[in-house]
Amino acid sequence: MFLIGLQVLVALALAGSARAAAPGDDSAAIRQVMGQQAAAWNRGDVVEFMRSYKDAPDTTFIGTGVRKGYRTILESYRKHYATKEQMGRLTYSELDVRLLPDAHGEVRYAAMTGRFHLDRTARGEAGQDDGVFSLLWEKTADGWKIIMDHTS
Amino acid sequence: MFLIGLQVLVALALAGSARAAAPGDDSAAIRQVMGQQAAAWNRGDVVEFMRSYKDAPDTTFIGTGVRKGYRTILESYRKHYATKEQMGRLTYSELDVRLLPDAHGEVRYAAMTGRFHLDRTARGEAGQDDGVFSLLWEKTADGWKIIMDHTS
Repeated sequence: MFLIGLQVLVALALAGSARAAAPGDDSAAIRQVMGQQAAAWNRGDVVEFMRSYKDAPDTTFIGTGVRKGYRTILESYRKHYATKEQMGRLTYSELDVRLLPDAHGEVRYAAMTGRFHLDRTARGEAGQDDGVFSLLWEKTADGWKIIMDHTS
Repeated sequence: MFLIGLQVLVALALAGSARAAAPGDDSAAIRQVMGQQAAAWNRGDVVEFMRSYKDAPDTTFIGTGVRKGYRTILESYRKHYATKEQMGRLTYSELDVRLLPDAHGEVRYAAMTGRFHLDRTARGEAGQDDGVFSLLWEKTADGWKIIMDHTS
């Protein structure tokens, strides 16, 4: 019993140290994903852009309504931004990251607010050129991923 | 060392069982706060309505822009909904709760999406009568509280 206790404690300690990262690292990692996301958009690569979202059925996009599922969101982006001209040039501003630590001080979730701007020569039908967004992030084995996106 | 290990394990086990709640309980608790919130609004009680938000400087409301701080959000509600007529009758629909468990299976955060409708005789200046929202919730010592509200 005592031996098992010690083993569990050591395992917990190792797991803790493996997971532990300075808060700045998480914020920087999330901002880096945003940078990669914008770069993919600006190359006209929607599939690569979508890699910042978690590939899961409960990943949610809130625009005029609520859309659920990675595939649904990807198809919607593809439909509304069919060409590189419709996609235009995307920039973000006023990015604010808030880490959401659990009771053990570990961070699996984070919230972000920010503004976007699209520079476009050909204005797409359903496109919005300026707006505000809030993103909910989850730290997955594959890095930080967006699990909820509300853009308005 | 072994004894300390055991004490820590027992403490962890007790803490775990004290915190543990069936997922349904958390969802039900959040929905109950939404019900109380709507009831307070429909009595014209903005201060009581605001009790569903966490009283903290980083509590955030995203509407046309990003507003930070419990007091700022409260003052904005007071300004835009000065009378019971402007407040009207609030109803929610399509509420969807998503619990966000940490690595230990404990739930401190949850996300919710839903729609709102306001029935008003006197339409307020800045008011919107229908829309969609996403809410980020934190389980605090004082119950489930909204820490981020994006309404559009």
